[in-house]
Amino acid sequence: MILTVTLNAALDLTYRVPHLVPHASHRVREVSERPGGKGLNVARVLAALGFETAVTGFAGGETGRVLRSLLAADAAPGRRNGPARVTDALVPVSGRTRRTVGVVDEGSGDTTQLNEPGPHVTPEEWETFLTAYRELLGGDVRAVALCGSLPPGVPVGAYATLVREARTARTPVLLDTSGEPLRRGLAARPDIVKPNAEELAGITGTAEPLRAARAAQRRGAHAVAASLGADGMLLVTQDGAWSAAVPERLAGNPTGAGDSAVAGLLSGLAEGLPWPDRLARAVALSAATVRSPVAGEFDEPTYATMLPSVRVRRSEAP
Amino acid sequence: MILTVTLNAALDLTYRVPHLVPHASHRVREVSERPGGKGLNVARVLAALGFETAVTGFAGGETGRVLRSLLAADAAPGRRNGPARVTDALVPVSGRTRRTVGVVDEGSGDTTQLNEPGPHVTPEEWETFLTAYRELLGGDVRAVALCGSLPPGVPVGAYATLVREARTARTPVLLDTSGEPLRRGLAARPDIVKPNAEELAGITGTAEPLRAARAAQRRGAHAVAASLGADGMLLVTQDGAWSAAVPERLAGNPTGAGDSAVAGLLSGLAEGLPWPDRLARAVALSAATVRSPVAGEFDEPTYATMLPSVRVRRSEAP
Repeated sequence: MILTVTLNAALDLTYRVPHLVPHASHRVREVSERPGGKGLNVARVLAALGFETAVTGFAGGETGRVLRSLLAADAAPGRRNGPARVTDALVPVSGRTRRTVGVVDEGSGDTTQLNEPGPHVTPEEWETFLTAYRELLGGDVRAVALCGSLPPGVPVGAYATLVREARTARTPVLLDTSGEPLRRGLAARPDIVKPNAEELAGITGTAEPLRAARAAQRRGAHAVAASLGADGMLLVTQDGAWSAAVPERLAGNPTGAGDSAVAGLLSGLAEGLPWPDRLARAVALSAATVRSPVAGEFDEPTYATMLPSVRVRRSEAP
Repeated sequence: MILTVTLNAALDLTYRVPHLVPHASHRVREVSERPGGKGLNVARVLAALGFETAVTGFAGGETGRVLRSLLAADAAPGRRNGPARVTDALVPVSGRTRRTVGVVDEGSGDTTQLNEPGPHVTPEEWETFLTAYRELLGGDVRAVALCGSLPPGVPVGAYATLVREARTARTPVLLDTSGEPLRRGLAARPDIVKPNAEELAGITGTAEPLRAARAAQRRGAHAVAASLGADGMLLVTQDGAWSAAVPERLAGNPTGAGDSAVAGLLSGLAEGLPWPDRLARAVALSAATVRSPVAGEFDEPTYATMLPSVRVRRSEAP
């Protein structure tokens, strides 16, 4: 089983409007709701790829209840998530799970995003989560991903604690966050971190991706996989550095492309694939997500076509 | 007791953001949730004025559950709604109560509004509502207000049916809606309709308020109270016509001013006040709502100051 952690899970709402005009009133033509937060998105991609996955983190209030019921409906046999299930191992919290609202302007196709703050998590709730997380790691977990922002109340060093717990349990661990939680998490020596170029620059102070990735590695990560948008990905490991990209630039919606890349890296980590293969999977899944007609989902035929065409290049000797 | 009907009730969310930029991502600084839809807003004002009030209409899904729990919390003793309670007489519906999202730009103070479509109401649910409505009218109801849009599935002649039921029960009835539901409702001869200038022009085809109000009266309303924004209100009855305004123009947020005007007219109707007094109450409550720091609520000291200062002028002989 692969485990993803989403401490600040969300109920993602998508509103479609003909044209978004600030300070005007709009009739929303179409509303969709789905479980959100990076780790839940990663789990959805993993399930579609056929990996048994469990999600943990916090869920609370009426929005948390809706999130969990949507997760259960997605996991029902014969649903689009493919052959594998997403098991709900979320921990109840007294606060209300946040909503995010994505307003899609049907004229331009662009999305305006409004993200609520997360629920306040008490020290007792955090302890309850840690106990549940340790129990999950004590089971059959092949790899764990720690994803996204921290809700209020969770200690800023939370990811460092979760990385250490995973290492104690000898479970490979990937960290995908930003800012101070990333900085602290790095020091606990995760197997992979997956910042984007901006997040990487934010913690290392350098905008040149290879130099920044090396700096992040020196701060503790065994491997740094930096997503560079349309330029693909850059990977720095103890065995060397690689870059990978699809043969041509793709038009589409980049929402969720980073989460799909995490799913690619994580599944490769769980299967013990060589680094170039992990990277190819991450880049092909990202591209198939950009090309999907549904934001945040990946297009399976595109993935099948892309995977063998991804160009992985060794950048330099180890 | 005063009854308000909100067939398309809503859970109103207010998001505060420093500055709304289309196609960008925003962290919402503050979220508030409250029961919404015109009839629920009217009931809140009536309760603050000390009138026992009941609300009916439809509520369903998790959003309906939140709406009802907020209503119950508001009705708890000692809450801000003042001495009187709002009784929940909403009818359950299988669909999900809609949300509205008001995004307040803290820089400009302006609000961008996103309104979800309402739940689909089945013919059986509409019949269940009609039975509940008749039972309420059979009790101690001094006046009823029919407010807002119709959710999908409810017949376009719904308000005509509800007006006729009220008249059969000898209960004074006010109608506050627009478009075809207003046009149909007018023919059933409500005691008061309260369109704004735009709604009035929409159904009568004339933009001159007095002429349009007379036209609406000829179509069936006993009295037409038209809200004219900062210009106050215009009232046409079988006893004559009046206009009323506060002595000076007020800066502030007009959200909910129309609902407060309905509360003023309705409470005057329930108490059998003379028309000029009803109008003065409506105009003073509207002004106190524009001046309130909280959108959609009225400022009680402003109301107390405004009420004696409202200028009511008789426009012409009956």
